Amino acid sequence: MDFKKLAQKYQTPLYIYDFDCISERFNSVKEAFRARKSLICYAVKANSNLSVLKHLISLGAGCDCVSAEEIKKALLAGAAKYKIIFSGVGKNDSEIEFALKENILMLNVESEAELKRVEKIAENLKITARISIRVNPDVDAKTHPYISTGLKKNKFGVDVDTAKKLYIYCKSSPFLEPVGIHCHIGSQILDIAPYRDATMVTADLLRNLRALEIDIKFFDVGGGLGIRYKDEVTIESYDFAQAVLANLSGTDVTIACELGRFLVGNSGYLLTKVLYEKYNGAKRFVIVDAAMNDLIRPSLYNAYHEIEAVDKNRDGDLADVVGPICESGDFLAKEVVLPPLENGDLLVVKSTGAYGFSMSSNYNSRLRAAEVAIENGKERLIRRREEFEDLVRLEREYLEGANEENR
Amino acid sequence: MDFKKLAQKYQTPLYIYDFDCISERFNSVKEAFRARKSLICYAVKANSNLSVLKHLISLGAGCDCVSAEEIKKALLAGAAKYKIIFSGVGKNDSEIEFALKENILMLNVESEAELKRVEKIAENLKITARISIRVNPDVDAKTHPYISTGLKKNKFGVDVDTAKKLYIYCKSSPFLEPVGIHCHIGSQILDIAPYRDATMVTADLLRNLRALEIDIKFFDVGGGLGIRYKDEVTIESYDFAQAVLANLSGTDVTIACELGRFLVGNSGYLLTKVLYEKYNGAKRFVIVDAAMNDLIRPSLYNAYHEIEAVDKNRDGDLADVVGPICESGDFLAKEVVLPPLENGDLLVVKSTGAYGFSMSSNYNSRLRAAEVAIENGKERLIRRREEFEDLVRLEREYLEGANEENR
Repeated sequence: MDFKKLAQKYQTPLYIYDFDCISERFNSVKEAFRARKSLICYAVKANSNLSVLKHLISLGAGCDCVSAEEIKKALLAGAAKYKIIFSGVGKNDSEIEFALKENILMLNVESEAELKRVEKIAENLKITARISIRVNPDVDAKTHPYISTGLKKNKFGVDVDTAKKLYIYCKSSPFLEPVGIHCHIGSQILDIAPYRDATMVTADLLRNLRALEIDIKFFDVGGGLGIRYKDEVTIESYDFAQAVLANLSGTDVTIACELGRFLVGNSGYLLTKVLYEKYNGAKRFVIVDAAMNDLIRPSLYNAYHEIEAVDKNRDGDLADVVGPICESGDFLAKEVVLPPLENGDLLVVKSTGAYGFSMSSNYNSRLRAAEVAIENGKERLIRRREEFEDLVRLEREYLEGANEENR
Repeated sequence: MDFKKLAQKYQTPLYIYDFDCISERFNSVKEAFRARKSLICYAVKANSNLSVLKHLISLGAGCDCVSAEEIKKALLAGAAKYKIIFSGVGKNDSEIEFALKENILMLNVESEAELKRVEKIAENLKITARISIRVNPDVDAKTHPYISTGLKKNKFGVDVDTAKKLYIYCKSSPFLEPVGIHCHIGSQILDIAPYRDATMVTADLLRNLRALEIDIKFFDVGGGLGIRYKDEVTIESYDFAQAVLANLSGTDVTIACELGRFLVGNSGYLLTKVLYEKYNGAKRFVIVDAAMNDLIRPSLYNAYHEIEAVDKNRDGDLADVVGPICESGDFLAKEVVLPPLENGDLLVVKSTGAYGFSMSSNYNSRLRAAEVAIENGKERLIRRREEFEDLVRLEREYLEGANEENR
């Protein structure tokens, strides 16, 4: 990838996404499930740029959305309504109403209270809501440390017994049609065993429900597949599919999954320019023009992203790579080896395709970066860099109003 | 404050700022320094809403800015150029050029490399740049745990010896005019002693520079004054001023300071609506319509914000207050006592005037909240709620472009 040319043409900081890499990932998952009917959904929250959505949709992806705005973006990017799922613990009334009116595939319901809201709103609209219920499979923590915290004490889903109760409730309601079963056990998962265990629990529930003549069509195994940021050994699409399918022999459910990071994470690069090198005592800092407002993962999750100097050798000394924002938490990497650098040199922060731009802010009144797609060796802008006017658009008129009032 | 009326009129989540509270804070600082010439600056990054800026500017505040965009916002809100300071470790060339051309009061320089960039750019513009240098006073860590980490290993400022060397360099440069000395020792500081120590170190340097006939006019003591979030005992404006002035008898420098959180933090309220209550096992969750994209401080800093149910009693049971975003890190408070709540009830998250909206994002494609000011008992909108079109404005055209290309 010609980072120098891209920096010249589009300036920095700049997000770059390799669309061919996204295709490869998506196709590997599709292929892994090809023995079954499947709906491979993209978890829009990972990177909701319209062109990224359009690209995945064109490959056949469904969209897993967590807000009405994500549904609107998916529709704008060309998603078919029957391939859109609405997930999330905190859907508000107007979002539920919107999703029902749009007649999307289903709502993943996460609590009894939410189920009642959905029912009420469906009743008001005189329609039947297609839903699935998110099951918290309570996988044994001792054997699976990645998900050992959170399952009992997190906000997501309901336990298996509650789920069963809710499905039975749905059956008796004219406004609720349970069409799916859903579980999602975590994020950046590198061990296949929890998937096997979670699927086993959920498949048991599925059989129970079938025995009660509750006709579940979609078995949604969620997402959470980890990617390689540093030297992680990750789960292959094929092994993921096998772990899921192992528990489902003899059933004809359509497999759904919701992958975000796995599909787009490794495709992304955050390109940034060196502003200054600086030593405080023996400590070396490389100050760059990207900051925690552009990429908050290092600061928020203590996440690791590989950083490389463009067109330089890899030898050098330890440095912290920090941004211009006025707080100590503003760093992109700590103690990485980098060659001597000077104003204008380029660094590239890797695997930033997921939870990069989508979490970015205007902190310190910084303008959000531009986004570029690379496909078949050709690049194109997919979001223009923000300008000052974008920053003040929603505030400016009230300032002027206040002026007049004070005269 | 009539939160119910505000929620009805402006919807939720909603940021509300008490402008009278801001005035009171600002005036207390101004008053505390009244025996001296002073420039009480507002650290714009804490809350950069144009109407908040205008309000503080109308009270006499200068503006401490950390990006060109913050300077532009300050100017748009009516700040006088000679009351604007440009701080920050990562000023890029175009920002430096902009600040110099605008002829603001001074640039707070944070490294030797930056000083050389400023000189170079001033030379190109054929002007003399007014600067101050940020000194890292290396206050004894043992006695002041709040700032014990970071001083030696953080990215900010230069040590006293380097500062002196740089001032001497400035004296010999026709493009640099050292007019200020600057230090800033941290954030949310509750102990007066570090201010005394830091000012002592900096005042010593000041006298050294005077002896070298380097004429420092502004003594910028930074900010960092803590506020009460829970039960903190905070520093009074008067005591802060006394600690600073104690070391400056016999000098006639103008005192500058840069307060953000102290001026606006306690003035702010984040109003949010309850969506659902939910128990996972014994654990109680109150799911609300505000989330980590609206207020990231609890998630990022593990910060505490008091939360109160509007028009309810204060008794109740422990609950985590969480938002609709799909990650466990999305919470506003953990284990707070709240009465039984249901869909539509209001909660108010207190002391969110600083680093609240200014750090907010569109994560999960959530629309950023509206902002309202209350002044003399009257409320007015100062930023309208985002709409779907705001979310896609910078992406949409490229989606259409791609469509055409593919035809």
